[in-house]
Amino acid sequence: MTTKLLDYSRLCLHTMTTKPWSLEEAVHAYEKAGIKGITVWRHHIEPYGAVGAARILGDSGLRVVSLCRGGFFPASSAEGRQRARDENRRIIDEAAALGAPLIVLVCGAVPGIPLADARQHILDGIASVLPHAQAASVKLSIEPLHPMYAADRSAVNTMEQANNMVAALSSPWLGVTVDVYHTWWDPMLKSEIGRAGKNIFSFHVCDWRTPTRDLLNDRGIMGEGCIDIRSIRGWVEQAGFHGFIEVEIFSDQFWAWDQSKLVERIQQAYLTSV
Amino acid sequence: MTTKLLDYSRLCLHTMTTKPWSLEEAVHAYEKAGIKGITVWRHHIEPYGAVGAARILGDSGLRVVSLCRGGFFPASSAEGRQRARDENRRIIDEAAALGAPLIVLVCGAVPGIPLADARQHILDGIASVLPHAQAASVKLSIEPLHPMYAADRSAVNTMEQANNMVAALSSPWLGVTVDVYHTWWDPMLKSEIGRAGKNIFSFHVCDWRTPTRDLLNDRGIMGEGCIDIRSIRGWVEQAGFHGFIEVEIFSDQFWAWDQSKLVERIQQAYLTSV
Repeated sequence: MTTKLLDYSRLCLHTMTTKPWSLEEAVHAYEKAGIKGITVWRHHIEPYGAVGAARILGDSGLRVVSLCRGGFFPASSAEGRQRARDENRRIIDEAAALGAPLIVLVCGAVPGIPLADARQHILDGIASVLPHAQAASVKLSIEPLHPMYAADRSAVNTMEQANNMVAALSSPWLGVTVDVYHTWWDPMLKSEIGRAGKNIFSFHVCDWRTPTRDLLNDRGIMGEGCIDIRSIRGWVEQAGFHGFIEVEIFSDQFWAWDQSKLVERIQQAYLTSV
Repeated sequence: MTTKLLDYSRLCLHTMTTKPWSLEEAVHAYEKAGIKGITVWRHHIEPYGAVGAARILGDSGLRVVSLCRGGFFPASSAEGRQRARDENRRIIDEAAALGAPLIVLVCGAVPGIPLADARQHILDGIASVLPHAQAASVKLSIEPLHPMYAADRSAVNTMEQANNMVAALSSPWLGVTVDVYHTWWDPMLKSEIGRAGKNIFSFHVCDWRTPTRDLLNDRGIMGEGCIDIRSIRGWVEQAGFHGFIEVEIFSDQFWAWDQSKLVERIQQAYLTSV
């Protein structure tokens, strides 16, 4: 049985969850709400540059949990694949400048590139940038995405695939991210979380709504959907992960709210439904 | 390598593909177009009753390939699960009356029922109606649905799960349906199709569009999406299946077309992209 969360010491918000806020607004609001962790999306850094963003984050009491996102390795030409690797090296440098210990990889997919090829591009791409990550002391984490994103976002769609890639590359700098939204349906989820063990680098939560009105931007707040989040958290903790619990919600509906009310609602949901 | 299809002798249309047409309109139009097979959806039968629909189908030169759909076994109460089984026995009787040799099972899922429980309800439900199917000489086929339907349509989301259920119940009256839309993303698809072998009872095609604007009703005509249909057909044929190739497209866009034009377009796509 999984214990109830009693405080916000493990709560982390993705800046994408409160997308309308600038990085500065998000940082101040999260701090004021007593949230301890932040995962920063790149387009929230852009207006400040990495150095400016690092200053804002460094001046706050927030822990930078990860940078979202690297990846997107598949491309139809060798030049395209090279560009993707170069871009990932730049993202690694950005993470180092920000003090982000981890980059989440949305591995990529391109309609028309056969999945088997895309999966090879991903494995080769990660292998090629891993030494740069290690040199920068930045970890990389493969996040399997829901199969409904297999056409254009990620050809890595199950924990088993992610675990296989981690096993193939065997580096302490490479691990996996478990996101309940992407993986809750998987009959092998529990066993693959157990197999991942100490390679679980991060844990994302939100919920699956019925009906889901949009493939991308209709995710639910924890508790308003059908995902058994507490059980999955139990498996992840049993596997040895006790880091931040990151709330990542893409939602046109919630982005239209007063974002302070959204944060409040998320904090309640964190206590009752995570 | 898979050969090109040269004629329509293996082409079957689902009445749902031309949803605006009544059964009579569909039967006449398919025949006129030289299509040989028809899979009938229950709501297209309703206005005629099973006997009336059987007469329409019997008077045509079309082969009835299957009846869509049985299943929906999970329910939160024992009474609900009993009602689902009774309903499936009625559907089996309906298939027998129609002369449909096969019922496709959309196995069911209910938001809030844990997936592990739903999967057990499904296995138990199928086991309980199998003797009735055998007595009626009607086969049942488990169709794994895309994981994006795991909340409310089917808790069976991979070929591996379907194969495991078929293995567990071990009856010549139970097999699997391979639908490229639901399974194309699966890294284990090729091996699980091989494993299914002679248990493949039917094969459905359409395509995955990018972007997909609706989870249910935005499927593509073969060739306009990213699914490598010809390769999957090759695997299915290598596994020993040489039956009808069924076109099942749910699409608000195409349902708004002149349905004769849609059938024409599907026939072209069948030759070039299946």
